[in-house]
Amino acid sequence: MTEPHLLTASGALALMKDGTLTVESYVTSLLSRISARDHVVKAWAYLSPEHVLSEARKLDQIPPEKRGPLHGIAIGVKDVILTKDMPTAHNSPIYKGEPAPLVDAAPVIALRAAGALIFGKTTTTEFASTTDGGPSTNPHDPTRTPGGSSSGSGAAVGDFQVPIGLGTQTGGSTIRPGSFNGIYGFKPTWGAISREGLAQYSMTCDTLGLYARSVADLQLLAKVFQLQDDTPIPESLFKIEGSKIAFVRTSVWPKAGPGTQNAWSKAKELLSAKGASVEEIKLPEEFSKIKGWHAAVLAGEGRTSFLGNYLLAKDKMHTMLHGHVENHTKLSRKAQLEAYDGCAKLRPVWDEIAGKYDALFTPSVVDEAPVGIERTGDASFCSMWTILQCPALNVPGFSGENGLPVGLTLVGARYTDERVLYAAKAIGEVFEKEGGFVSKLV
Amino acid sequence: MTEPHLLTASGALALMKDGTLTVESYVTSLLSRISARDHVVKAWAYLSPEHVLSEARKLDQIPPEKRGPLHGIAIGVKDVILTKDMPTAHNSPIYKGEPAPLVDAAPVIALRAAGALIFGKTTTTEFASTTDGGPSTNPHDPTRTPGGSSSGSGAAVGDFQVPIGLGTQTGGSTIRPGSFNGIYGFKPTWGAISREGLAQYSMTCDTLGLYARSVADLQLLAKVFQLQDDTPIPESLFKIEGSKIAFVRTSVWPKAGPGTQNAWSKAKELLSAKGASVEEIKLPEEFSKIKGWHAAVLAGEGRTSFLGNYLLAKDKMHTMLHGHVENHTKLSRKAQLEAYDGCAKLRPVWDEIAGKYDALFTPSVVDEAPVGIERTGDASFCSMWTILQCPALNVPGFSGENGLPVGLTLVGARYTDERVLYAAKAIGEVFEKEGGFVSKLV
Repeated sequence: MTEPHLLTASGALALMKDGTLTVESYVTSLLSRISARDHVVKAWAYLSPEHVLSEARKLDQIPPEKRGPLHGIAIGVKDVILTKDMPTAHNSPIYKGEPAPLVDAAPVIALRAAGALIFGKTTTTEFASTTDGGPSTNPHDPTRTPGGSSSGSGAAVGDFQVPIGLGTQTGGSTIRPGSFNGIYGFKPTWGAISREGLAQYSMTCDTLGLYARSVADLQLLAKVFQLQDDTPIPESLFKIEGSKIAFVRTSVWPKAGPGTQNAWSKAKELLSAKGASVEEIKLPEEFSKIKGWHAAVLAGEGRTSFLGNYLLAKDKMHTMLHGHVENHTKLSRKAQLEAYDGCAKLRPVWDEIAGKYDALFTPSVVDEAPVGIERTGDASFCSMWTILQCPALNVPGFSGENGLPVGLTLVGARYTDERVLYAAKAIGEVFEKEGGFVSKLV
Repeated sequence: MTEPHLLTASGALALMKDGTLTVESYVTSLLSRISARDHVVKAWAYLSPEHVLSEARKLDQIPPEKRGPLHGIAIGVKDVILTKDMPTAHNSPIYKGEPAPLVDAAPVIALRAAGALIFGKTTTTEFASTTDGGPSTNPHDPTRTPGGSSSGSGAAVGDFQVPIGLGTQTGGSTIRPGSFNGIYGFKPTWGAISREGLAQYSMTCDTLGLYARSVADLQLLAKVFQLQDDTPIPESLFKIEGSKIAFVRTSVWPKAGPGTQNAWSKAKELLSAKGASVEEIKLPEEFSKIKGWHAAVLAGEGRTSFLGNYLLAKDKMHTMLHGHVENHTKLSRKAQLEAYDGCAKLRPVWDEIAGKYDALFTPSVVDEAPVGIERTGDASFCSMWTILQCPALNVPGFSGENGLPVGLTLVGARYTDERVLYAAKAIGEVFEKEGGFVSKLV
């Protein structure tokens, strides 16, 4: 038998269903992987093996007919998401050492109700807001960042320590670690999953993100979260052959490094070779304003989001957050409102463009994960899709100049989450097989 | 000396500043008011006199130079807002009897940092989402509802049990109890105060609401929360005389009962008599669609917001919430997106209209508080302003046919919260003095 920690969630579920794997032995395998790797990857902000084993034993006691769809599946939770049995420290000195808050964030309630095992808290940048990295490293090369702010969830899933991780995205905090760690990272439509119990930075952008090593696993989660398009398509109907696939460079394209450029042309080749009709498209000029609007919205919303902790303990906060509260950029509310209204106007325009294609790709990152863990990287390619509030999914499979993973982002119209997952499943298989990335982890 | 419980927050602060009132004696007065009235008004979901007195004594130990701007001010907190030292039960059997969550909502962090005394948790409808009332009553007539969903905060402030209360508004949950209890109820611009740690129903609409018995008290809070317009006007510059004041009936006007009709004409008379130029204005036809869009957004967003608890314990939830999660109205995501985009388009249109006037009024409620505590009333007049995300402030002063309070709502463009407060201060004085409402509570 494959070592259980190497299984996807779907793989582990199948074995648990037919009785060949208990939750306890599954968890034991994950814990031994963590024990072997944690000194390198450092993905966990909080992890209690005793607690996790005790939860596993409880799950094993549940009779088969009462087990949930995620029975026993281990989930790493970014440490800005409330969990009733584990502390939430936001990587902030203000909350270091505080006890568990005794309350679960809404998505955690849903996952537990579905039988999932909340495994531990994964590292984040301070309040999921800065790009200051550490201590987590990239499992493919520990001299490099795993990305951020969902650093620990990205690294833990990439390193086979857990099959599923929760992140959040305000700029590119789910997509970027997805690309850097060579895994699927999915930011659903804004509002499609509750954000009650998540740290708040930007009401307009903050979205729960989901990590997995297979699209089937993301589909499992999507089912629990009831992500339903208006007109679901039977999965079998999505075929690359004959599909219309668009590649959207956006105005940020000049930032693309060789890894992303290579992924870009390789993806087009592969999809064309499989019979897709591939075209590069340009967005209307107005879309180039979105990057600036995104920054304005974050500055304006950060001004209120960080006020409480600023008043409580300013000296224990990153100076970037001081800047937000004190409005260092001298952003006017008028400019903030123009950013709101400008983005709102372009959302249906994007939806209409996206509706003309079966799948649309855009870059995930500048390039493979950069050397150094002090900085978590650049969100430039992601922020547009975050504030357009549309689904975005990092599909891995490509390789940078140093052999590290590079992905591309599948984007879609708002509330076409199921459609995006279907496309990612078919296309991801091709990219993983033929994209060129070779993992040294398995 | 006036009995301390009768003081506004500003009044109590002044006495505490000059040393004639300690926090402990202030709290003792509030507690004795509550003790005399609680069997009638039933505004509290959780209140521990021992805890409050102990907190008061701690505040009294703080040397004067280290005291915050809200030093010792007692604040009732709606029981859907997390408080680290008190349970949050959401008026839900799921959370009844759960311990305190050990974490504060962001606005509570800010208030505590400013020296406020979090006094207790006030009653709410289930998850601040239904209109099923009870057990709280209207302090002016216990056979009537205090409104909802911020029932307890509205009633407690109206009944002189605390000077300040926190509510929330998704439809009309701050404005309606404001009007029914004869107090100021302020829903600032969406996003102007963090909503981290508040129960989630609608990301687009949910807003923290503030209750007080004077506008000066709301201004104190606004200062703590750093509600700043782009171009603040010196308070002394707002004069009713010579100001341009608009009255906006909206398409909901046919619902207005005699109490609201009386307030409407009386307000116009009073303001005209003081030298304001008063005109009734009509909004463009498109605005009549907002009521339906608001319902669509709540249904669509409620579908995800209540999913977690639904999966956890569906049988302990109101059937209306089942309806949301199960999408009983068969709302399509397309219709939800049309509602988003439609409202987004009208927000700057409203801002522009509002910018032409010094103040704008619209009805707060259908009429005075109806008889019966089983239903908390109708949000029809409020939902438009909630989803337009603009500031809305109930100004009390008028009286219905049964002598109960009726208010009108001052509305403004987004992020003109300071401006709305200035106008409310000058105009509220007139309405309170000459509007016709006579309180039997003092």
